[in-house]
Amino acid sequence: MHAFGGPEYIKGHGTQNDFVILPDPDGELELTDDRVRALCDRQRGLGADGVLRVIRAGNLPDAPADVPYDVWFMDYRNADGSIAEMCGNGVRVFARYLVESGFARPGDLPVGTRAGIRPVRTHDDGRVTVEMGQAKIFGESATTVAGVHFSGVAVDVGNPHLACVGDHDLDALDLTTAPPHDANLFPEGVNVEFVRPLGGEEVRMRVHERGVGETRSCGTGTVAATAAALHTAGHHTGRRIVHVPGGTVEVEITVSGSTLTGPAVLVGGGRLDADWWQNP
Amino acid sequence: MHAFGGPEYIKGHGTQNDFVILPDPDGELELTDDRVRALCDRQRGLGADGVLRVIRAGNLPDAPADVPYDVWFMDYRNADGSIAEMCGNGVRVFARYLVESGFARPGDLPVGTRAGIRPVRTHDDGRVTVEMGQAKIFGESATTVAGVHFSGVAVDVGNPHLACVGDHDLDALDLTTAPPHDANLFPEGVNVEFVRPLGGEEVRMRVHERGVGETRSCGTGTVAATAAALHTAGHHTGRRIVHVPGGTVEVEITVSGSTLTGPAVLVGGGRLDADWWQNP
Repeated sequence: MHAFGGPEYIKGHGTQNDFVILPDPDGELELTDDRVRALCDRQRGLGADGVLRVIRAGNLPDAPADVPYDVWFMDYRNADGSIAEMCGNGVRVFARYLVESGFARPGDLPVGTRAGIRPVRTHDDGRVTVEMGQAKIFGESATTVAGVHFSGVAVDVGNPHLACVGDHDLDALDLTTAPPHDANLFPEGVNVEFVRPLGGEEVRMRVHERGVGETRSCGTGTVAATAAALHTAGHHTGRRIVHVPGGTVEVEITVSGSTLTGPAVLVGGGRLDADWWQNP
Repeated sequence: MHAFGGPEYIKGHGTQNDFVILPDPDGELELTDDRVRALCDRQRGLGADGVLRVIRAGNLPDAPADVPYDVWFMDYRNADGSIAEMCGNGVRVFARYLVESGFARPGDLPVGTRAGIRPVRTHDDGRVTVEMGQAKIFGESATTVAGVHFSGVAVDVGNPHLACVGDHDLDALDLTTAPPHDANLFPEGVNVEFVRPLGGEEVRMRVHERGVGETRSCGTGTVAATAAALHTAGHHTGRRIVHVPGGTVEVEITVSGSTLTGPAVLVGGGRLDADWWQNP
């Protein structure tokens, strides 16, 4: 087998939101913005939506002070090199890797993020449950796609969402451009979900992510969609199975918070070429 | 280090045309179309433009009869699972891997392809030279982009090209749709190159590949562009340094054939997850 001499990496995805994992317990890697961009470049690198560095919280200088030293910290970087606080799909893949690699025991474990500690539970079937915090409905609003009006509710899941629940023809939606939004209600922009109840607890969803475009999955978007679907049905709490283009997740809304359960897949991994890492 | 139990793989690219290499000397892998598509899927797999299986010619039932048993054969598959005969960028990456892995000595080596044996030479700086066969100019033609007329020459490099040489503003070209072509001269469609001489032996090129769209590089396209640039300058033979969006290559046209010299980069590699490979 060909032996590469650079850092170890793993490629994985959660509902087709995909990541390069870089195990770096002691914080020895010099993870520059250029290297993140090169790793995520789909032609000249490995290709991914983001990088998840696996590091002990105490070895990352900018880890929040309330995350204990020995907690595994998800140092998340977007494909453009910028830092992100949390990622509901990424944290599942991160936790799955911790357990598969032997860094953590299966079951309940804490994951450090820039948004604080997230309690996570790994399951025997490879799925992972993450606590996503409270989903707060804070208003009603609407958007239009190709001249068609969609009314929805505004939901705060740490970031802003407009979730439009109805008997929509989701396949016919053209989401190549951002649906317009009320700039007074959403001064920082908004993620827009189109949600169709399928009967029982199942719904189908497509999502346009703020600043990104349509994606195959959005963790906070599935939580917002569930909160909106429950609200539309006259409930404050409950569960929904959410089908997104990249797969299926389960969301549970309680009086005090929410959980997201979904798949986490490790595709493979090995080492980077040492020359490539030095000069990507 | 986390140990995956599936097949070995390597990720690499040539001028940003990217590939998953699967070492399989004895032909033991069951490389189905579904697995090729999953490997090349950029979210749920590793992501690539194609798969290069490394196999001894004698172990591949459909290898051409004139390729000797012990020659390393490039079993090339497109991302959609279909078979392709040759790929000027892929064969460079393939040869670089053979040498880096110790399967072949540096220097001159033959590579088996479905188009027959290709003589290849690896260089100490990581670049690789490939014999690309004759580039035959067989007519004049033209196309239009956004109402602007471009005249060019028809070039056969095993596949058909229309190479338009001139003082074009390449940055302003919109190649999101296929430039129209003369269906009598190009009954099977055509790859279209827009080529701007930069002075001396250097040219810049953008390319629209038949059935694919604009790409960052096209090996046969750089050969067609060089033949056309030499023809426009009144020469039958000579050399051009061709700058494409994905990098830079050198093309030499002689009376009897042509060679393409360009970079070949191995990014990294390891093993696939055994469960993922079984059920990708």
